[in-house]
Amino acid sequence: MGYATGRDEALVERAMRRAIELAANGPARGVNPRVGCVILDAEGTVIAEGWHRGAGTAHAEVDALSRLAPGRAAGTTAVVTLEPCNHTGRTGPCSVALVEAGVARVVYAASDPGERSSGGAERLRSAGIAVRDGVLATEVEELLGDWLIAARLRRPVVTVKWASSLDGRAAAADGSSRWITGPEARADVHRRRAAADAIAVGTGTVLADDPSLTARDEHGALLQEQPIPVVFGRRPIPADATIRRHPREPMFFDGAELRTALRELHGLGARSLFVEGGPTLASAFIAAGLVDELLVYLAPVLLGGPRLALTDLGIASMESALRLEIRAVERLGADLLVVATPLLHPPVDDATNSTGDPTGPIDAFTEGN
Amino acid sequence: MGYATGRDEALVERAMRRAIELAANGPARGVNPRVGCVILDAEGTVIAEGWHRGAGTAHAEVDALSRLAPGRAAGTTAVVTLEPCNHTGRTGPCSVALVEAGVARVVYAASDPGERSSGGAERLRSAGIAVRDGVLATEVEELLGDWLIAARLRRPVVTVKWASSLDGRAAAADGSSRWITGPEARADVHRRRAAADAIAVGTGTVLADDPSLTARDEHGALLQEQPIPVVFGRRPIPADATIRRHPREPMFFDGAELRTALRELHGLGARSLFVEGGPTLASAFIAAGLVDELLVYLAPVLLGGPRLALTDLGIASMESALRLEIRAVERLGADLLVVATPLLHPPVDDATNSTGDPTGPIDAFTEGN
Ligand SMILES: NC(=O)c1ccc[n+]([C@@H]2O[C@H](COP(=O)([O-])OP(=O)(O)OC[C@H]3O[C@@H](n4cnc5c(N)ncnc54)[C@H](OP(=O)(O)O)[C@@H]3O)[C@@H](O)[C@H]2O)c1
Ligand SMILES: NC(=O)c1ccc[n+]([C@@H]2O[C@H](COP(=O)([O-])OP(=O)(O)OC[C@H]3O[C@@H](n4cnc5c(N)ncnc54)[C@H](OP(=O)(O)O)[C@@H]3O)[C@@H](O)[C@H]2O)c1
Repeated sequence: MGYATGRDEALVERAMRRAIELAANGPARGVNPRVGCVILDAEGTVIAEGWHRGAGTAHAEVDALSRLAPGRAAGTTAVVTLEPCNHTGRTGPCSVALVEAGVARVVYAASDPGERSSGGAERLRSAGIAVRDGVLATEVEELLGDWLIAARLRRPVVTVKWASSLDGRAAAADGSSRWITGPEARADVHRRRAAADAIAVGTGTVLADDPSLTARDEHGALLQEQPIPVVFGRRPIPADATIRRHPREPMFFDGAELRTALRELHGLGARSLFVEGGPTLASAFIAAGLVDELLVYLAPVLLGGPRLALTDLGIASMESALRLEIRAVERLGADLLVVATPLLHPPVDDATNSTGDPTGPIDAFTEGN
Repeated sequence: MGYATGRDEALVERAMRRAIELAANGPARGVNPRVGCVILDAEGTVIAEGWHRGAGTAHAEVDALSRLAPGRAAGTTAVVTLEPCNHTGRTGPCSVALVEAGVARVVYAASDPGERSSGGAERLRSAGIAVRDGVLATEVEELLGDWLIAARLRRPVVTVKWASSLDGRAAAADGSSRWITGPEARADVHRRRAAADAIAVGTGTVLADDPSLTARDEHGALLQEQPIPVVFGRRPIPADATIRRHPREPMFFDGAELRTALRELHGLGARSLFVEGGPTLASAFIAAGLVDELLVYLAPVLLGGPRLALTDLGIASMESALRLEIRAVERLGADLLVVATPLLHPPVDDATNSTGDPTGPIDAFTEGN
């Protein structure tokens, strides 16, 4: 018995490692997560594999089951990286497919935090299927990355970036700000832009700087991956603004409440949003508690004067200061990059609870540590 | 000949090392530098040693010569850490004493940058004495430290310190600032206060915070060394201000131009001044180009709002930004300390020239590298 359990444990874990490999074949961006599935027969032999290829295609469990002759799935174990969904979208719920196929046991790693898709484990159990969760959960959460955090928060993971002088100015008195930071810091920003699903600025920055909002290499060539450019604000943007020639169609949120805009972006598949400023928009995100990560590029320069990197945050006294934790300090050429995450007080009890609608950056800590 | 020269070289260097040891017996603070002197006979044997014990006492050369019987110094070599002075102060010029004693050769390490005391080497040469300089100059310059830089600048070496949030605020909107930074950062400030000869604040800080301006240990006990407290500004300070109970007599500069005040402090023996703020005074020192080192304590906090760590620096555009070089970044508890020095452009040709009156922090680079 002890031997059998140990052997089963090892087989299940091996199958989960294989399911993670399969999941990684799926698309890193988009509305849906990367999911992999392995079907084991009663002897623990792999008899089918599947993975999800992106929105509109079969889910991993259905993909794996489809490789089996009718009836062959009866009594098997399905090992899947994410809790089978309970949601009828472009495909039927995976939980139902597993029940109908006669699977005897389902093992998964991470719970589905989806608003409408969760509840699969419950449905499986009530159909008499043995369910086990948490196998290699850490590895799978790492693979799911921003998708999982975004799904829990029901919005993209938000990074706010600014570049300032050591005395906190984003520009000189006349508005000139090219270049506060040096080439290494700018290259770092471009790499991070490329890794984000969307990149936001306020109309103030578009009107002042006419930015391209593209991710480029050090020679100015477009990088392979490009974020969706997003503009916040009511003021009209000129017809010939550079942003209109971005390889991806820009999105305009004119007057939308930030949280609403974030939900909409999330619904379109954006797992991460890179807020590039300016000061007014960055301050609004921070004041609304909608920031998970801060990137502060500090240049070895003093400017003084009125052009601040952040404006007002609605903080009256030291007690209500927004406390951060410094995660990393890097030297980029002559500049410094400080990476920080907000600390929330009072602490929220169940930060990863999938039913609440967290109002702050409480899940920042599940990210990248 | 080659052998003899090599032997002489080694003897002179050994004597200079001994002179440095002797110099280190002198007081680290005060108007005068630490100087040591060794007298070698024709065979290279040490026949006398001396050092300077502080203002009003014999200079090192005179101290060494006084240990010899009359006539015994004839034909000897005097090895001295600093160029013999040419100045009649509370004692006569050392150059004259050496000439009168019949010394045949003088070897020294660092030139005397003093306004009135330099020219000793010249006087020795015109009296027919062989003179050599630059022996172990680096070691001696290190020993002289701030004294030498201050002597070259004709003012104390100025360190400007501030503590701010990551967005450059020195206090919250209501003025509260206790405590932006944590205990490790505050302890670091106290250690550096203790190492400074004087510590400056503006009347704004005295009236707002009633600071003690003492250097204290982590239990609040006074450290052994205390800087002179200095207050800049015209507004009267209350009779019961804490600063009036400082172990050293406070100095008040009401309306004095900063450069003039610095010269006066230098004349009183202050080699280093630690400017603790507030924002107005710190900005005034920076705008006047009177800063050699910046200590920026950055707390992992965002504040927003109007209370800036620096106010205005008279900088209109990025081209006239005050460029710095970051010398060190330290993590102090949850905080960061950025140590930076101003870069001057256009570069000044002869920064260590002892006759000019440098108008900026051009000598910052001779310090601590
Ligand atoms: N150093 C840096 O890292 C950096 C980065 C970017 C920009 N900048 C500089 O920043 C300057 C522009 O500053 P800015 O503050 O005017 O630009 P901004 O933050 O880009 O734009 C501000 C505008 O954003 C819109 N907005 C939309 N939703 C908002 C909300 N919830 N709260 C507040 N505003 C919202 C408003 O537009 P409407 O008024 O149109 O409704 C607001 O006027 C430029 O000079 C640029 O060079 C610096
Ligand atoms: N975070 C930090 O590191 C830090 C450090 C210190 C203070 N603070 C905060 O700063 C606030 C006080 O700010 P503050 O800017 O009013 O204080 P301040 O810089 O200490 O004092 C300003 C005053 O300095 C005098 N002054 C003398 N020579 C001057 C010159 N050449 N240029 C300009 N001013 C000169 C003027 O006094 P008169 O008007 O009397 O002539 C001026 O009003 C307090 O709330 C304190 O808590 C923060």
